[in-house]
Amino acid sequence: MVGVAVVGCGRIGRVHARNAAGNSRASLVMVFDVAGTAAEQTAAELGVKAARSLEEVLSNRSVEAVLLATPTDTHVPLITAAVKAGKAVLCEKPVDLDPQRARECWSGIAGGNPRVMVGFNRRFDPSFKSLRERLEGGEVGPLELAIITSRDPAPPPAAYIKSSGGLMRDMTIHDFDMARYLAGDIAQVHAFAANLVDPSTAALGDVDTCVVSLRAASGALIQINNSRRCVYGYDQRIEAFGAGGMLQAGNRYPTSVESWGAARTGARDGVLNFFVERYREAYEAELEAFISCVEEGRAMSPDFSDGVKALLLAEAAERSFRSGRVVDLG
Amino acid sequence: MVGVAVVGCGRIGRVHARNAAGNSRASLVMVFDVAGTAAEQTAAELGVKAARSLEEVLSNRSVEAVLLATPTDTHVPLITAAVKAGKAVLCEKPVDLDPQRARECWSGIAGGNPRVMVGFNRRFDPSFKSLRERLEGGEVGPLELAIITSRDPAPPPAAYIKSSGGLMRDMTIHDFDMARYLAGDIAQVHAFAANLVDPSTAALGDVDTCVVSLRAASGALIQINNSRRCVYGYDQRIEAFGAGGMLQAGNRYPTSVESWGAARTGARDGVLNFFVERYREAYEAELEAFISCVEEGRAMSPDFSDGVKALLLAEAAERSFRSGRVVDLG
Amino acid sequence: MVGVAVVGCGRIGRVHARNAAGNSRASLVMVFDVAGTAAEQTAAELGVKAARSLEEVLSNRSVEAVLLATPTDTHVPLITAAVKAGKAVLCEKPVDLDPQRARECWSGIAGGNPRVMVGFNRRFDPSFKSLRERLEGGEVGPLELAIITSRDPAPPPAAYIKSSGGLMRDMTIHDFDMARYLAGDIAQVHAFAANLVDPSTAALGDVDTCVVSLRAASGALIQINNSRRCVYGYDQRIEAFGAGGMLQAGNRYPTSVESWGAARTGARDGVLNFFVERYREAYEAELEAFISCVEEGRAMSPDFSDGVKALLLAEAAERSFRSGRVVDLG
Amino acid sequence: MVGVAVVGCGRIGRVHARNAAGNSRASLVMVFDVAGTAAEQTAAELGVKAARSLEEVLSNRSVEAVLLATPTDTHVPLITAAVKAGKAVLCEKPVDLDPQRARECWSGIAGGNPRVMVGFNRRFDPSFKSLRERLEGGEVGPLELAIITSRDPAPPPAAYIKSSGGLMRDMTIHDFDMARYLAGDIAQVHAFAANLVDPSTAALGDVDTCVVSLRAASGALIQINNSRRCVYGYDQRIEAFGAGGMLQAGNRYPTSVESWGAARTGARDGVLNFFVERYREAYEAELEAFISCVEEGRAMSPDFSDGVKALLLAEAAERSFRSGRVVDLG
Repeated sequence: MVGVAVVGCGRIGRVHARNAAGNSRASLVMVFDVAGTAAEQTAAELGVKAARSLEEVLSNRSVEAVLLATPTDTHVPLITAAVKAGKAVLCEKPVDLDPQRARECWSGIAGGNPRVMVGFNRRFDPSFKSLRERLEGGEVGPLELAIITSRDPAPPPAAYIKSSGGLMRDMTIHDFDMARYLAGDIAQVHAFAANLVDPSTAALGDVDTCVVSLRAASGALIQINNSRRCVYGYDQRIEAFGAGGMLQAGNRYPTSVESWGAARTGARDGVLNFFVERYREAYEAELEAFISCVEEGRAMSPDFSDGVKALLLAEAAERSFRSGRVVDLG
Repeated sequence: MVGVAVVGCGRIGRVHARNAAGNSRASLVMVFDVAGTAAEQTAAELGVKAARSLEEVLSNRSVEAVLLATPTDTHVPLITAAVKAGKAVLCEKPVDLDPQRARECWSGIAGGNPRVMVGFNRRFDPSFKSLRERLEGGEVGPLELAIITSRDPAPPPAAYIKSSGGLMRDMTIHDFDMARYLAGDIAQVHAFAANLVDPSTAALGDVDTCVVSLRAASGALIQINNSRRCVYGYDQRIEAFGAGGMLQAGNRYPTSVESWGAARTGARDGVLNFFVERYREAYEAELEAFISCVEEGRAMSPDFSDGVKALLLAEAAERSFRSGRVVDLG
Repeated sequence: MVGVAVVGCGRIGRVHARNAAGNSRASLVMVFDVAGTAAEQTAAELGVKAARSLEEVLSNRSVEAVLLATPTDTHVPLITAAVKAGKAVLCEKPVDLDPQRARECWSGIAGGNPRVMVGFNRRFDPSFKSLRERLEGGEVGPLELAIITSRDPAPPPAAYIKSSGGLMRDMTIHDFDMARYLAGDIAQVHAFAANLVDPSTAALGDVDTCVVSLRAASGALIQINNSRRCVYGYDQRIEAFGAGGMLQAGNRYPTSVESWGAARTGARDGVLNFFVERYREAYEAELEAFISCVEEGRAMSPDFSDGVKALLLAEAAERSFRSGRVVDLG
Repeated sequence: MVGVAVVGCGRIGRVHARNAAGNSRASLVMVFDVAGTAAEQTAAELGVKAARSLEEVLSNRSVEAVLLATPTDTHVPLITAAVKAGKAVLCEKPVDLDPQRARECWSGIAGGNPRVMVGFNRRFDPSFKSLRERLEGGEVGPLELAIITSRDPAPPPAAYIKSSGGLMRDMTIHDFDMARYLAGDIAQVHAFAANLVDPSTAALGDVDTCVVSLRAASGALIQINNSRRCVYGYDQRIEAFGAGGMLQAGNRYPTSVESWGAARTGARDGVLNFFVERYREAYEAELEAFISCVEEGRAMSPDFSDGVKALLLAEAAERSFRSGRVVDLG
């Protein structure tokens, strides 16, 4: 059993806390949030302790692993502190908005045998994972083309946008990681971005719609498309094409019901609406993988460097759409 | 080239006439209808002659084959006359409403090397034909269960119902033939029928909805369901199940467009609306098969006896739902 | 919180025990099985007590509700004992193999304000439940035709068959309940049955394949088809048709991955393999509904009489296929 | 009736010739090919005259319209000659490999009231046309994102590649026109291209795989992906996304049969294999539209300028992938 503490009791933090409480190999020891009320509610719901301070978490010997679901600007100090306290860490993406700062974080902890997984939950979605395993297994030959579609149901509030680091670092970063998960390291990036959804996003200097092209070092070409608004739900799809054919992994639905009437046939309801529902199984499997790595002393995947590489892609893509140029990655 | 005449210029007759005109191995010589206007319109459209009488058709030496698309009660005399005149015949289903009369028809012509195909067009639908070939090829093993769904878009006018011979002989007869096409001869029949669609059908002593169970001599069990009204179009589906799996063949659509919105996802338009559209390719292939049999002197399939057997099934099913008993077939 | 005990620790019993342990309104107090080892394993896994005797369960004041997942022939005495001990009961189907015995059971307990739910889990499947709610809501008008497909992945062992009461009482009974769930009470039954799967089933006097037609008191016609073997998984589908269109609810899959290759396009993997996986959410929702009824003092649904009515349908269907006649239900 | 001549009797020319012969408003007068045999075979099949020279075609007063299906380098002189002879022209894409030459062609004929349609057949595909009409009708709001997938079943022979003008002018040009059909004029282009399919293509200096991003003047972003090889058939799909939802139009299949077995479920056969089959209805509708424009004196669409604009996009995209830069269009 791995003793676990959750730091940050927002939406994702509570997902992690519940999954830790329900995981047969983990034991949820305590939860913490700078907003004490959030921690207390989560603690009460799950029958665990609400820590009063981060120190209380990091000094607790029963806590072997820390799940970080706090605002992005706290990730670097919290990872550093947790690793220095000997804890394994599962940190939500992105590691930081600044790749340089992220690298310095790593330099500061690299000597201490750090165990850090970055929370790219989509790698653990059963369908995306299966697609990738079948791709690796050669079912369609080496990857030549991939199309990654990711559309949020609705734009986040302006306050969130402000501190998000922009579309690329906040949203597309998942797709950059997915591209790397499928195709390996990326050599070139091009992006077009636009403000088509919400004028307030433009007012904040951010974009809400984009198309991105990537060229992988392997030669594969990848397309990403994003929108901050999608009326039919949280649209999450992957298509992978090669000499032997194609694999597609798609959306999930609350039910299998189809409706046939005078106006429409074979109509389904909206797809599962947002990440808590859509990636419920992915979050469970992510935690399971993390706990396994901790228990069995195996290397984390995706690890800190995966977090940094996705961030570098986000930065490159932003440079691309702002400059109108293709950006080469080292 | 096979010289062809079409007798009966209603909806199906015109389909046959156009197909004959467009078939590279057939030559449409003339068309005939007791309503001279119908014949003249069809003739004008296709640039052929409108015969003034049946005699003109049957005595024409260029006419080697006759396509009969006349009212049911004329089938027996017309088949008889055409066969006696040495013509090959493609006759629309049913051969007659009375199996006894149909058999007597056959007795009367059997000595003259009759060449008669019965127009069970669905056997020639590319999807149903492919399903059957794959079934024959052993893809799912011997047939164990089949489900045949057939629903008309809207009930026919009362005048049609009156002379139709009832649901079983008019509509379900296609499904009885399909059951035989898939499973071979049928040993037992049970039917429940109901008036759920149109009270005027009940007033005429007919039914508009039914479920039928068949036990084939092979052991396979088959379910048929029919309705005279289907708001989403002409619903035509087959499912065939065996030890090795299942084959399904389904509806066809005018386009492949799917619509995704706030209320519905993956919604298609209505299925192709009725037999002229849905079975366009089937009618072409049926004529092609008929012409081939004529040209190459091969045996017709489905032949006269297939027409009689479907009719006997229709009669048995009607007896079943009226008596509340299972009916055994010879 | 409702204190719960699970009696019977086989496959379904363990599902109930885990769901009770994870349900926020229930508290799993103890488990029991005449095979002590099974109870101890389940108890150990879930951190609860393994009772030594049924008396220990029924006399425990913390146990307000009992989940019965024992062999069929124990249902009547256990329901009786539990109700007399003042417990609410969720009993797996069928109530008994003999409807008369089931009715006597009810007579014996009816005076004591019995609270008994029968475990027709499929009513709680999110897709089937949604289909039924939409049907009730009038989306396709009053039900006219329904098709219920239910095929098990593989036949059970001969030992199970022997005590199962036969295909109708063991397997089709779920479909009879589903027919009643969708269409209300049933007036007439016809069934054909066959031995197409496993000769050893025939040797035991049972059948393994069937097609059933039902006429509901409402006028709706329903078709059921069953097979004890289905190579592509546990095939569970419902189609409901009316004047306004059709609703279909279908199978569930482990992933959404589709494969496109030279030989096949759009191919998915097998459907979820058997009831524990396919109806995972249904079992959770069933328990949730049961607990709600207990906590809030509401009437159970499906109740004891639903269990008896499904059993009477099973009996009638068996009489039908053995006699070759339609069976009328009172 | 519009008298029609077909010039060029290769694959597409024969498609046009057959469609003209079968079109009720057109009359196929003659066919011509510099390879006399090809012309004679086509003429014989359709029962028309094989012209001996282009002059014979252009001087024939019965020929009101010319369908050009000759090699690309002949398009400019043939369009010029035909227009000067007073004929309406339907010319296969591309107008020419050199946009400058195409513009000069136009300058040379513009004074003579030229009637020229360019053969972007996909605009006439029933599904793509329906998608576009529904998009225009506002079903999903103004277009924000589009994904155009186009993959050929197999690479053309090296000889064809050599004179094709390269992937962009030969294959992607259809997708550029489709992008314009959906989104209007294009402001910016980016392309990545690669050699992943056939080394002999690289040896000829051409590419076989690409991803292209377009920014429309309207603000919409469009992604195109192409491969010269696709084992499951001719993959032709469009996805259009906006504030109100999404429309998808997809592949077509020879049958509706789905196969369910131990290894795969819901598997369909390969999609229709190449343009003659996939776009059969589109070619018919294209000719119908052309004939209508001729008969009714309406403006052609897509017209000569659409041909030039698609060519400019092809040129820009090639410049983009060769230079690694985004290309702005005037």
